[in-house]
Amino acid sequence: MNGVFITLEGPDGSGKSTIIGLIGEYLEKEGIEFIKTREPGGTAIGEEIRDIILDNKNTNMSYQTEALLYAASRGQHIHEKILPGLKAGKVVLCDRFILSSLAYQGVGRELGIKKVKAINDFAIGDVYPDLTLFFHIDPKKTLERKFGNGDADRLENLGNDFHEKVYNGYMDLLKIYPENIEIIDANGSIEEVLEQAIDKINKAIRQRG
Amino acid sequence: MNGVFITLEGPDGSGKSTIIGLIGEYLEKEGIEFIKTREPGGTAIGEEIRDIILDNKNTNMSYQTEALLYAASRGQHIHEKILPGLKAGKVVLCDRFILSSLAYQGVGRELGIKKVKAINDFAIGDVYPDLTLFFHIDPKKTLERKFGNGDADRLENLGNDFHEKVYNGYMDLLKIYPENIEIIDANGSIEEVLEQAIDKINKAIRQRG
Repeated sequence: MNGVFITLEGPDGSGKSTIIGLIGEYLEKEGIEFIKTREPGGTAIGEEIRDIILDNKNTNMSYQTEALLYAASRGQHIHEKILPGLKAGKVVLCDRFILSSLAYQGVGRELGIKKVKAINDFAIGDVYPDLTLFFHIDPKKTLERKFGNGDADRLENLGNDFHEKVYNGYMDLLKIYPENIEIIDANGSIEEVLEQAIDKINKAIRQRG
Repeated sequence: MNGVFITLEGPDGSGKSTIIGLIGEYLEKEGIEFIKTREPGGTAIGEEIRDIILDNKNTNMSYQTEALLYAASRGQHIHEKILPGLKAGKVVLCDRFILSSLAYQGVGRELGIKKVKAINDFAIGDVYPDLTLFFHIDPKKTLERKFGNGDADRLENLGNDFHEKVYNGYMDLLKIYPENIEIIDANGSIEEVLEQAIDKINKAIRQRG
């Protein structure tokens, strides 16, 4: 397995989704084969699961169900897209992965980090990221960026208290699982953020050997 | 919590679904308040999950994803229907529950009974059945009964080897988790099978106290 598995993590509105597109453009220019994908979703089955998770009408979804659906979508993603991509030697760029579940469901929903990690380990097996870029941004800024547009999904709609809890969860997780995580200062301009991200990604690609 | 939680388990084609309808008619006649439900499904969110699990086009679904989707559907079922029914003092009759996941995904899919139980414990919490009726039938008979109609779903379509493995899995599970499980001889006529089931159910209702 010669590919490089890179995940982008951070609170809603931290700019990940914009930057992942620009990283893709950079890799394309450099002639590096890659796959760009996202969670929840990333496969046909995963997108069907995503629709259930994010549907604003599903306000009555239990927190356990939510966490299990994220893990189910992730298991399919690994099986159908991430693992085949890595086996083909590609860089796999993934917008959100297990760290999101630990922060949102483990801490935000108060299900417990260990319990949520266990159901995700069931889904993932040993396909853990080679590099996780954590987009760190002042929480006040993320809420402005993301929720200015009135177009939020069921999770995004959970309000400031929830998102603050998720932010604090991420801060704890960086200490609990520091392995292969690099912190990106996402408060600056797009160019500044992109430059940091590409620097870390190039290091990971060189280490592939 | 004064309700009685009763689950019906057994291989495909063991006649559970016919009998559960007749049990419902009996309880209605006796003036006993009950809910009749099924897995996967049982709630709006659960039925959406059921559609993904059983869809014949989803041949590429990973076994882990399948097991997590069953658990997700079960978590919602507990939260939205089973627990409120039990709290209201009702008899809750459920066609399939955790034992099906242990037999089909734990043994049939070879994911391991303990691992599948762990993700289900996450979904269920402590809402375990007061009584499980296990419909025991000669495996050759179940395949004839069920698959004569050419209308099978993705799991039913898995072939005789898979269903034999599931049957053997059930036989092992009856030894591993005998608590609150009653074996119903499902080889006889509908009337004979129903009589056994009602006898066990009446005992469980009397024990409710």
